[in-house]
Amino acid sequence: MIIVLKPNSSKEEIANLVDRIKEKSLKPVVFEGDERTVIHVLGNVTDDIVNSFSGKCIEKVMRILKPFKLASREHHEETTVVKVGNVEIGNENVVMIAGPCSVESEEQIMAAAEMLKKLNIKIMRASAFKPRTSPYDFQGLGIKGLKLLKKVREKTGLMVETEVMDVRDVPIAAEYVDMLRVGARNMQNYDLLKEFGKIKKPVILKRGMSATINECIMAAEYILYHGNKDVILCERGIRTFEASAYRNTLDVGAIAVLKSMTHLPVIADPSHAAGNRELIPALSKAAVAAGADGLLIEAHPNPEKALSDAAQSLYPEQLAKLMDELRPLCEAIGRKLG
Amino acid sequence: MIIVLKPNSSKEEIANLVDRIKEKSLKPVVFEGDERTVIHVLGNVTDDIVNSFSGKCIEKVMRILKPFKLASREHHEETTVVKVGNVEIGNENVVMIAGPCSVESEEQIMAAAEMLKKLNIKIMRASAFKPRTSPYDFQGLGIKGLKLLKKVREKTGLMVETEVMDVRDVPIAAEYVDMLRVGARNMQNYDLLKEFGKIKKPVILKRGMSATINECIMAAEYILYHGNKDVILCERGIRTFEASAYRNTLDVGAIAVLKSMTHLPVIADPSHAAGNRELIPALSKAAVAAGADGLLIEAHPNPEKALSDAAQSLYPEQLAKLMDELRPLCEAIGRKLG
Amino acid sequence: MIIVLKPNSSKEEIANLVDRIKEKSLKPVVFEGDERTVIHVLGNVTDDIVNSFSGKCIEKVMRILKPFKLASREHHEETTVVKVGNVEIGNENVVMIAGPCSVESEEQIMAAAEMLKKLNIKIMRASAFKPRTSPYDFQGLGIKGLKLLKKVREKTGLMVETEVMDVRDVPIAAEYVDMLRVGARNMQNYDLLKEFGKIKKPVILKRGMSATINECIMAAEYILYHGNKDVILCERGIRTFEASAYRNTLDVGAIAVLKSMTHLPVIADPSHAAGNRELIPALSKAAVAAGADGLLIEAHPNPEKALSDAAQSLYPEQLAKLMDELRPLCEAIGRKLG
Amino acid sequence: MIIVLKPNSSKEEIANLVDRIKEKSLKPVVFEGDERTVIHVLGNVTDDIVNSFSGKCIEKVMRILKPFKLASREHHEETTVVKVGNVEIGNENVVMIAGPCSVESEEQIMAAAEMLKKLNIKIMRASAFKPRTSPYDFQGLGIKGLKLLKKVREKTGLMVETEVMDVRDVPIAAEYVDMLRVGARNMQNYDLLKEFGKIKKPVILKRGMSATINECIMAAEYILYHGNKDVILCERGIRTFEASAYRNTLDVGAIAVLKSMTHLPVIADPSHAAGNRELIPALSKAAVAAGADGLLIEAHPNPEKALSDAAQSLYPEQLAKLMDELRPLCEAIGRKLG
Repeated sequence: MIIVLKPNSSKEEIANLVDRIKEKSLKPVVFEGDERTVIHVLGNVTDDIVNSFSGKCIEKVMRILKPFKLASREHHEETTVVKVGNVEIGNENVVMIAGPCSVESEEQIMAAAEMLKKLNIKIMRASAFKPRTSPYDFQGLGIKGLKLLKKVREKTGLMVETEVMDVRDVPIAAEYVDMLRVGARNMQNYDLLKEFGKIKKPVILKRGMSATINECIMAAEYILYHGNKDVILCERGIRTFEASAYRNTLDVGAIAVLKSMTHLPVIADPSHAAGNRELIPALSKAAVAAGADGLLIEAHPNPEKALSDAAQSLYPEQLAKLMDELRPLCEAIGRKLG
Repeated sequence: MIIVLKPNSSKEEIANLVDRIKEKSLKPVVFEGDERTVIHVLGNVTDDIVNSFSGKCIEKVMRILKPFKLASREHHEETTVVKVGNVEIGNENVVMIAGPCSVESEEQIMAAAEMLKKLNIKIMRASAFKPRTSPYDFQGLGIKGLKLLKKVREKTGLMVETEVMDVRDVPIAAEYVDMLRVGARNMQNYDLLKEFGKIKKPVILKRGMSATINECIMAAEYILYHGNKDVILCERGIRTFEASAYRNTLDVGAIAVLKSMTHLPVIADPSHAAGNRELIPALSKAAVAAGADGLLIEAHPNPEKALSDAAQSLYPEQLAKLMDELRPLCEAIGRKLG
Repeated sequence: MIIVLKPNSSKEEIANLVDRIKEKSLKPVVFEGDERTVIHVLGNVTDDIVNSFSGKCIEKVMRILKPFKLASREHHEETTVVKVGNVEIGNENVVMIAGPCSVESEEQIMAAAEMLKKLNIKIMRASAFKPRTSPYDFQGLGIKGLKLLKKVREKTGLMVETEVMDVRDVPIAAEYVDMLRVGARNMQNYDLLKEFGKIKKPVILKRGMSATINECIMAAEYILYHGNKDVILCERGIRTFEASAYRNTLDVGAIAVLKSMTHLPVIADPSHAAGNRELIPALSKAAVAAGADGLLIEAHPNPEKALSDAAQSLYPEQLAKLMDELRPLCEAIGRKLG
Repeated sequence: MIIVLKPNSSKEEIANLVDRIKEKSLKPVVFEGDERTVIHVLGNVTDDIVNSFSGKCIEKVMRILKPFKLASREHHEETTVVKVGNVEIGNENVVMIAGPCSVESEEQIMAAAEMLKKLNIKIMRASAFKPRTSPYDFQGLGIKGLKLLKKVREKTGLMVETEVMDVRDVPIAAEYVDMLRVGARNMQNYDLLKEFGKIKKPVILKRGMSATINECIMAAEYILYHGNKDVILCERGIRTFEASAYRNTLDVGAIAVLKSMTHLPVIADPSHAAGNRELIPALSKAAVAAGADGLLIEAHPNPEKALSDAAQSLYPEQLAKLMDELRPLCEAIGRKLG
């Protein structure tokens, strides 16, 4: 940490500050520049400590070290490969995870599974619990949905993935499905992150729609810190001033930055970024070209009947076409669509 | 809802669309303009329905009615006045709610209470549970903190307010304190909102840092819909591209807009917007001038020792000075600092 | 400037870096911390120099000193008072500058002048040149508009203010009007800023709708650097994710921050932030409460006939009411509406 | 245009509104819904007209038709192919435009030309005029730089491209170089756009860093409207809340959307989005995968000596490697790197 003092700070003020630093068991080194005195602070600096130095003679405080450790590639050079059943995420494969927004009925979810099997997709996404902006919209099937997902796995061999929003549902869902998801709106729901840290199933952590890259990594740090090493980061579009051409701005730069700053696999969700199915192919290709280790895509056997996210659900033939377009692209960058 | 068709949509496509609208028990009225055909859709239109019309011959879908009802001033003209003990929020008074970021110890919280009593402030804020970006920072005292807050009320007569983040803690906290708070990071934590809907204590709902005004009102709608009528909205700064001069951008326009669109009281939290104590007086005055019904302010008996949010905690003498400045301002706009 | 090196940088890399710093006539001081080596760089550091140190062994470069000098309050403690005729901006008065969006006709502009005179407003705003998003919209009267503004001053004694967008028009406009304005879209039009630096009339510099506070001050620095000391900064709302409740988000925090970082007067334009007249009173009051030295407001003798910005133009009676509301507010904060 | 009235609007108010619509030579069709009366307005609706209906009984006004015509793919289905010498932009080729940020000296620009020739790149970018945030930074060589660019073309056969910021320089620069550029900061400098409309050289129009997609297209509309049909749009990253991991957020969705909404070629500038050279390869690949017709990239024969944008200038070997990576990617999507 570096503390920059205001010009004309008195000797006494500087001495006081040095004492306060020592009280916190940190080591101050004072450096007098031409126009500013600067104090280097050595030791274990937390955010709370950074924040406790402010006002009076202090102009600004700058952090030198990153606030995360477990997620950092600096201390863990090799990329983590997360296993979902026999599917590996984080190696040379680009893994497709697809399926409907919600589990709606046995008939619908089985038709969705059929659609995926035909395309050799190995992991199905589908939400049993739904975070809805409006209390008047479809809220998901809950436990009944989890049971249907389990049935899908038993009947088809597909791995199944679902979102969990309520701390009380985490251990339950972990029994039914193969991979759990933290939704964008819950990226900073710390009690939920702690629960995800306690389970033994892989977790997809979606970046919040206005979360900085640092905040996203800190959320992963929570899960890692509480004991779960199998975290996959997911870029899903950020909120910007552009709000009519698409729903969110897919931040492909974040994919590359997250991969260089952390050792965790990074996937992308082009469906929620787009908000409409026309844009999904372009965003999918861009995400893969930027280095994504996988894609999380909404596709429905019959989008016009979908109970939620209808506008951004691919038709089966669109999903097939997208797979055909992604295959040569993956090869061109030395990877394989898996 | 209005559906705008693409130019050159065929008669058959239009007929199909009309059928789909009728299937959903809605009434279509087709209107042929010079360059576009437009279909008015009458009936109970939810977000899911809006979303289900997309692609193919559809250019865009525009909602006419607002998606919220219970929170809307349209159906409830009179402003709601929320009572916290004998303090009323939403009438001509501008209510000050102040206190430290966190409950840290009995000594600290009693000193804080003393500070408020001297200034005739009637509601204390202090968090027992803390949403922290880093797992390495102070996480709050939990239940022990709730007990200390109860003790404050018993000893001093102050009303006490605290944030709750975990669904499991909502009913417990509701027994200990007089008012609960939904933090900005949890504004779209719908399971939590439902729990707040079930309790009988007033709730401060903080706007998410990237929540649109409509989304903020929809979050209030969740709480109202699940049974709790005592909701106070709180503007606390939004995330914008400006990230170094202050922490968040206080959106004073939102205060005025929320008051005109809803019947709920609206307060402001200048402390989290500012992120540093120097800026708090200006933001406080601006919020009150824009029509805020109250302020939620961090102040600490000894900020240099604060375990969290130290930089944005007012010193006791700063809080006193702010009260002195706000008093004539409130009178100039026909209100009273309460 | 502080250069933070990557962990494990070699002695040779550090030595090379030290040489490069010396080549630029700067003085390096190497500081070895526990986990990072840090180099302090003393001397005259420009943005180009900051930018030239990157990549290889460099983790990040942090600037210590602010990049502006002439605008900084650090080197010029006393607030600058700008004179427009006999009106002073930057002292204890809060100065109202009002008028229609555009000069439309002699009849219209004289009616507008009449409206202002009745309310004892001393400076009229009105654009002769119009920055329009669409080539199909009204583009302004140009020189003819300037002549009408001059006529207003001669007939009524009002000071007149107008925007200039084209470098070629700056010296011409400076002959006709009393104060010129740099519009938000031109805040980083550096050739235009240079021309404004050469004239001898006061300039209102509007903050760009996505300009950081630092960028806004750097734009002022351009004008000051090229010779014109009479610069007034103007906050007019910034572009954020919220785009339907109002046009832009008025950043009241920026008003306070600009006043503390610079010695220049700071005014606010609530009309362009609001985009609709209903919101203007609340924003005006908030801006004044936050410390604005004046307001720039659109008002039209007959808004329904306005050729541009009709929706955000106040009716004459609304302007009168706003003045009545602002007067006691100004007094409550120790100022006077002038 | 659709005007939605407030509930309980009186018959008289509606009749007045109908009259006002007719006065503007438009045709109103009143439609009474269950909860709102809606008026369809047929005819030539400009932004000024949309804006003139507001307040009183009007709840909101929604535009049905897009505000642009000449740029729209709706009226011009075939993609425009822009010719720069014998290079075509907008066909199946992905065109690389590369070079240093600024023209610095004859030696430097010739070395840069050499670098491009070796890689078979046909168009050089280099700025003679520089938009600099600080008046203390390198401002460009001006006319001398233009002359050096002309010399490059004469000696090497490379096409040369440069930015123009001052209206007075447009016709001059058009004589020296093969293609001109409107910088991001000038996207809404309408007088400049008009000048670009009058020349007979192709123009690259960079999207402003906070310009919506609609505003970007409207800026192109200005140039087209004033007579120049050879406009190339350029996505270069937008300003968002994420400001430390990279400089701007490359908006790959915008590339796809601009290509579907307009008939103009769309290229991307990954250098200014990244702000650092490490990120450029990932962004370049993402842009091409999303459909970009070309790339505008900063590369310097000796970045450590670059006078501006040093941190984001590729080293010659990095540019070569990027070309090698892009070639198979282009083929995988059915295009060719040209």
